[in-house]
Parts: sequence; structure tokens; C-alpha cells
Amino acid sequence: MKIELQKVLPADIEKRSFEMITEELGERIIPEELAPIVKRVIHTSADFDYYENMKFSPAVAKRIAEALRAGACIVTDTQMAKAGINKKLLETFGGEVFCFMADEDVAKAAKENGTTRATASIEKAAQLDRPVIFAIGNAPTALVRIYELFSEGKLNPQAVIGVPVGFVNVVESKELILSSTMPHIVAAGRKGGSNVAAAICNAILYMMRDGQL
Amino acid sequence: MKIELQKVLPADIEKRSFEMITEELGERIIPEELAPIVKRVIHTSADFDYYENMKFSPAVAKRIAEALRAGACIVTDTQMAKAGINKKLLETFGGEVFCFMADEDVAKAAKENGTTRATASIEKAAQLDRPVIFAIGNAPTALVRIYELFSEGKLNPQAVIGVPVGFVNVVESKELILSSTMPHIVAAGRKGGSNVAAAICNAILYMMRDGQL
Repeated sequence: MKIELQKVLPADIEKRSFEMITEELGERIIPEELAPIVKRVIHTSADFDYYENMKFSPAVAKRIAEALRAGACIVTDTQMAKAGINKKLLETFGGEVFCFMADEDVAKAAKENGTTRATASIEKAAQLDRPVIFAIGNAPTALVRIYELFSEGKLNPQAVIGVPVGFVNVVESKELILSSTMPHIVAAGRKGGSNVAAAICNAILYMMRDGQL
Repeated sequence: MKIELQKVLPADIEKRSFEMITEELGERIIPEELAPIVKRVIHTSADFDYYENMKFSPAVAKRIAEALRAGACIVTDTQMAKAGINKKLLETFGGEVFCFMADEDVAKAAKENGTTRATASIEKAAQLDRPVIFAIGNAPTALVRIYELFSEGKLNPQAVIGVPVGFVNVVESKELILSSTMPHIVAAGRKGGSNVAAAICNAILYMMRDGQL
């Protein structure tokens, strides 16, 4: 068996990947201001289902960029998403990423209240004295708690990137966010993940860097 | 709109998720010793394509467990996979995870040799004086270099978890590993990712903890 590798220079691999994604999307058009986000999610997953799945509230990318420039932080529900977000670039805009999942006070509060740690970590985020963008890639219970606190007037996030993955209440938790008036980016259905959450954040950061946002 | 949430206790969410996966797999049977791995990958991706995609060399899970117990380390190509692997549990078996991608010597070698940093990080891993299991979730160039060094007799990994995701040479790099005699777990095709690499490692660690391996 002879396996032929494409000859692509290291610096050109990502560019060539995005060209392949664009070619394969073909007639499936994405609005210009959203295309870098959808394509980066497809790039991180090799899954063209995201062309259909991804839902955006109006001008959400612009709002996230403005919020980051005005000092918002990103709060995520996994160390993996935190690891995947381009923190160096985020810092150039004054941003920062927090993940409270491994914090002792969060573990304690979750145990006392009989909730998931994700729920408790959202409650901790609601106490922050700076604007927050949520990037939820794992825990539907995090999305549910964001929705509840928003409905009770106790939390007002700049935006919710709601892309948990899986089975128990994942679809439902995303429907809650889609039904709300919070600015949002949601991957409807079961699919998503920490990698998808990080890819969405990075796509927006790259558009900010490149003057597109 | 009324959105109904399933009532599941926090401690039971993962168990219920795996039950849902098993129900949905239905007649699609997976050999007992591989089922926890395939199901955990579906759990982390909500993508049943992995039922078809995942390829295992004979007794590979057993070999990885034995290698870890004998002092092997895991080398991965992303900080995200490193973040996702259950390091506390790995440590109980004496294991450790390395990711060399952000190391200065790797960046320097890549620049000098005109390779990707992933290629350079595999060359660094080949210098380790302990047995290595690779968990590659991102860079096909890492898999290609593993294959080349193995073919030249310069690297003899205990196993290769080869699940990079994407477009340029991803399918081909996995075919190289599948065609080799290295023990391997591969997600054939374009799909994979850091989350999938971490899920495979964790599935094996949980089987070791639970006496299944």
C-alpha cells in the first residue's frame, strides 16, 4: 500500500484546511460575519453537521467583541476549554478566562446543595464584579443555572456560548438559552464540546485581531 | 414554550448518559473489552459515527494498561488533551502526561527544520528514556513522524492513540498507523480531536481502576 501525503508547508496547513472546508460547503452559504466561526467549528470537529446546528442571536459576534474590549472575562465549565482558548491573544484585549470547576468552594457548595459542580461554578461566576461571557462546552446543568439566574434577574451575561455535548438534558438546556433574550451562540442538538467552545472563542478573537470585528 | 428537564441526580448523570448510548446503539454490538472506550468517545462527542470509525489492534487496551503499570508515560500533541486526561487517576498507576508543543526547544527545532511543532515534539519524545504511549488528537504531522521514526527503528512506542481531526493529511496519517505493526487505537477518517484522545485515555484508566484491565 502506498499512502500519498499532500505536500503542504507547516505555515499553510490551516489555510489549506479552511480552503477544503469552503470547497466542501459549496453552495451552502454562511453570512460573512459568521463564516469564520462556523468554519472554525467544522475545522475542530471535521463535522459538517455544524453548518445546520449553529444558531446565532443577532450581531452576537460583534457584541462579544465589544464586551471583550470593554473588559469582559470568559467563564468556562472545563479545564479543556480553558486550555484551548488562545489566552495570549485574549490578553492583548485585556481579557481573561476562568474555570471554577476545580475550586474547593465550588465542590463544597455543590455537595451542600446537592447540585453539580457546574451549577455551583455558575453561582460563583454570578458574584464576579465584571461583565461575563460564558463558554459552556460540557455541562447542561451550567446552562440551566445561567437561564434560571437570568430569569430571576440575578445574572446578566454579555453573551452565552452554549455548546455542551451529550445526552441528559443537553438538547433541553440549549432550548432554554435559545428561548431566552440573552445574546447567544448555540449548537442545537446533542453535539458540541469543550473543543467547540474554544473554537468559537478563538474564531471571534482572530476576527478581532484581523480587524473584522 | 415549556421545556421539560429530565430529573437526574448529579451523581447519576454520567451513568444515565451511558445507558442512553447503550440503548441507542441497540443491535450494534461492541466487544466487551472495547465497549467502554467506544462509548466514552460517543459520550464526549455525541457522535455515533465513532461506532464505525474506531479501529483497534489486537489486545491494545490490555497492552496500554500493562505499559502504564510498568511505568509508561503518555505524550500528547495538545494542551487540551493534557487538560482532559484524568491525571490524578493516572498518577495512582505511576503515570504522567507530557505535551511538548509549547516548549521553546521544540519551537526552535521546528523553525530550523521547517517542520511543524508537532513533528519536533515527537522527535523530543523519541529522546525520552522511558516507554511512551502517544495520544495524538490534533496533528497528523505528529502521526507521520511517529510512523517514520518507527520505520527507521528510532522509536518503539508502547501504543499509538491516533485520532487527529481535520483535513490536510488527516486520513492519510491514520492509514499509515493502521498499516503499521505498532499497537494502535485509531479513529479512521477525518474525525477525532483532543477530546477524543482524552476520552480514550480516560476510558482505559477507568477500566484499570475498576479491575477490568
